[in-house]
Amino acid sequence: MADIIHRIGIKAPASRVYKAVSTVAGVAGWWTKETLGESTKGGTLIFRFRADDGSIMGEMHGRVAELKPGKRVRWRVTDGPPEWIGTDITFDLSKGGGGKTIVIFGHRGWKKPAEFMAHCSMKWATFLLSLRQLVETGKGRPAPRDLKIDDWN
Amino acid sequence: MADIIHRIGIKAPASRVYKAVSTVAGVAGWWTKETLGESTKGGTLIFRFRADDGSIMGEMHGRVAELKPGKRVRWRVTDGPPEWIGTDITFDLSKGGGGKTIVIFGHRGWKKPAEFMAHCSMKWATFLLSLRQLVETGKGRPAPRDLKIDDWN
Repeated sequence: MADIIHRIGIKAPASRVYKAVSTVAGVAGWWTKETLGESTKGGTLIFRFRADDGSIMGEMHGRVAELKPGKRVRWRVTDGPPEWIGTDITFDLSKGGGGKTIVIFGHRGWKKPAEFMAHCSMKWATFLLSLRQLVETGKGRPAPRDLKIDDWN
Repeated sequence: MADIIHRIGIKAPASRVYKAVSTVAGVAGWWTKETLGESTKGGTLIFRFRADDGSIMGEMHGRVAELKPGKRVRWRVTDGPPEWIGTDITFDLSKGGGGKTIVIFGHRGWKKPAEFMAHCSMKWATFLLSLRQLVETGKGRPAPRDLKIDDWN
């Protein structure tokens, strides 16, 4: 098993960061504009990515497995790229220095540390910068306006 | 053991990317301005980081363990934060789509996937964006002008 983990600090109360990672409108503001579905516990969220021509480039489904207000969100991936199915995406929030909320982001349980995981690791880092931008300034950079990092996306 | 791996594409020939990751002047242009030492095989590179007041905040030593022109650089960390000692930092270059050189970056062999590793993973991602910026535009964002990502740095 292999894991992606990232740590970022966001200058805002945990409640605001939590809203951005636990609601459909929140996630649509930093990851992918086309976030749909049910964000309540047990519900399924749909994260859809489109190419420039409007065609669907990728779609992931995440079952909301844990919700601890102000503290933790966990999604279990139930559909999407084969490498993603069965993995867990987590956001753990805590109080850091300088009035920052610390987010420990995890995308855990990859079967292999393959090249696609390296792509996703880099891509997640840029989406976490987008999350920070959303919470701190009100405007993130979700797909399809996301920062392209390589020849895959 | 736990690994950090990231994938990034840089619109430039592999020779230019290789120069940026295998020479003192190259690394000083995207990771830390204060990069010193010997970049030949078996030599030791010193990567020094200073706080705003000029004091040394951190310093890592890497022995140049592999050098394959245009293809691979590997440093074995011999000094620095305890978690870093004995780990390997690698840059594997290959030809990607759209005239891009693909860099698979690795920082492998962490004893534990602890919070400090999550910090370094996020930080490495921003330094790889700095590397891309350096190679594509001539100007990276090395420490101490690096993007701060949390309450640690």
